[in-house]
Amino acid sequence: MGNSMCGHLLAAGYRATVFNRSPAKAASLVDRGATLVDSPKQVAERSDVVFTIVGFPSDVEQVILGDDGVLSGSAEGTTIVDMTTSKPSLAERIADVAASRGVASVDAPVSGGDTGARNGTLSIMVGGLEDDFNRLQPLFQLMGSTVVHQGGPGRGQHTKMVNQTLIASGMIAVCEALLYATRAGLDLNTVLQSVSSGAAGSWSLSNMAPRMIGGDFDPGFFVEHFIKDMRIALDEAAAMNLSLPGLALAQQLYQAVVAQGHAKDGTQALILAMAELNKIDWKGQTG
Amino acid sequence: MGNSMCGHLLAAGYRATVFNRSPAKAASLVDRGATLVDSPKQVAERSDVVFTIVGFPSDVEQVILGDDGVLSGSAEGTTIVDMTTSKPSLAERIADVAASRGVASVDAPVSGGDTGARNGTLSIMVGGLEDDFNRLQPLFQLMGSTVVHQGGPGRGQHTKMVNQTLIASGMIAVCEALLYATRAGLDLNTVLQSVSSGAAGSWSLSNMAPRMIGGDFDPGFFVEHFIKDMRIALDEAAAMNLSLPGLALAQQLYQAVVAQGHAKDGTQALILAMAELNKIDWKGQTG
Repeated sequence: MGNSMCGHLLAAGYRATVFNRSPAKAASLVDRGATLVDSPKQVAERSDVVFTIVGFPSDVEQVILGDDGVLSGSAEGTTIVDMTTSKPSLAERIADVAASRGVASVDAPVSGGDTGARNGTLSIMVGGLEDDFNRLQPLFQLMGSTVVHQGGPGRGQHTKMVNQTLIASGMIAVCEALLYATRAGLDLNTVLQSVSSGAAGSWSLSNMAPRMIGGDFDPGFFVEHFIKDMRIALDEAAAMNLSLPGLALAQQLYQAVVAQGHAKDGTQALILAMAELNKIDWKGQTG
Repeated sequence: MGNSMCGHLLAAGYRATVFNRSPAKAASLVDRGATLVDSPKQVAERSDVVFTIVGFPSDVEQVILGDDGVLSGSAEGTTIVDMTTSKPSLAERIADVAASRGVASVDAPVSGGDTGARNGTLSIMVGGLEDDFNRLQPLFQLMGSTVVHQGGPGRGQHTKMVNQTLIASGMIAVCEALLYATRAGLDLNTVLQSVSSGAAGSWSLSNMAPRMIGGDFDPGFFVEHFIKDMRIALDEAAAMNLSLPGLALAQQLYQAVVAQGHAKDGTQALILAMAELNKIDWKGQTG
């Protein structure tokens, strides 16, 4: 996703310095004029604004706060924008540390996936100071079509947790609907004609149910990343003294998806675990 | 809803004979030319096609199979169309009994609510013989914009159960998202701007979250009817040897909504029970 997002900045005439643990992944950006360097620190030394988008909160911590990390190379006045889906509490901590060095830090996780990144139609959920948000708007607008300032540091990440909470129970809904329809002897595609456009409709139903029915489990969005997001949301909820039984159920069902070897599949693989739970051979449904 | 649906038939030039336990509710149809009679049996004696839409499966059983019920007044060649959301197994039984008397029976539950009924934009999910479906199509098309034949008797009801299963976990998702956002100190309407149009989007989020936020718990769709639907779906699932943990959780959470005195409120009242569970005074959120 970072590749597409950086590409939009290059296309608009911005100069970019890039780093990736696998330099080959940055080759197409270098072909388009980006400068490849050897560390996040070197990126920061050459940049006014530094964007990061990595895998897990531990990666965010290392890339921004670690040795050779972004902050170690950031002059006063630099702005750091982490677009990883990560812990709200970590985003707050980074903003605090950065502020103590005269560096601005904004959390700006996204939704919309590969397609949204490619088409510049991401939803970007921004936490940070209003001045920093306003200064970044011309850049955000190149990457996303829905760019909303949600409040101070960490509030972008909290909003992304809301987003993932919605998806979590929504995916249970889609899987249970398809399993019910299967056992009831209904034609799955015909059922979708009846239920997709009314009060039962959702993005997940329209986009994920057809992949489940077709046996297409390519990511899309990786199960292992979604599990990470739900774990963060549940941890944050617990820290806020909040019980979310639906999210907890989803997280546990996705744990079963991992147990069955589908961590690197797309989130629609939930149907495989829930079918297995009911001794339904889902491959048989789609073959 | 029956009033609006019958109104479309009258407007198209069909003659109608109507019955309601509360005759006043049929007054506007009588004003438009419908004939009011004293029993479902008398409706059937004067009609080629008899539509029923009532509350619970026990009502369906009484209105169609009971003394003075539709079947007792149906001549050979009559068609009975039950549009109540009711048990698939009851729909199959009615079709069997009807067939033994030369009467056709079709199950055709709807989604789309009061608004869909008024505007003729319901989704009508039809179970029954194909010939019967085809013969009824001109009538269905006056009431709905999505009319799909889902298979033999009971398959319309099964499809409606799929629809309600989707809504059930989807409503948990919406409530947990709003509770998380509340505890995280986010502005709820601003959060909706970020999450409504992407992968987390759903009809429930777009239509129910604003009512929850605004403290509007008018039905829409009654909690007590939704509970009934989920109970039917869970019973049918159990009979099909199918475990649906998300639906079971939703049914239990809605049981708490009833326990808190909201059986006659709209389904968006789920937020009240889930807020109470977390000692959040939701009225305080919306005041």
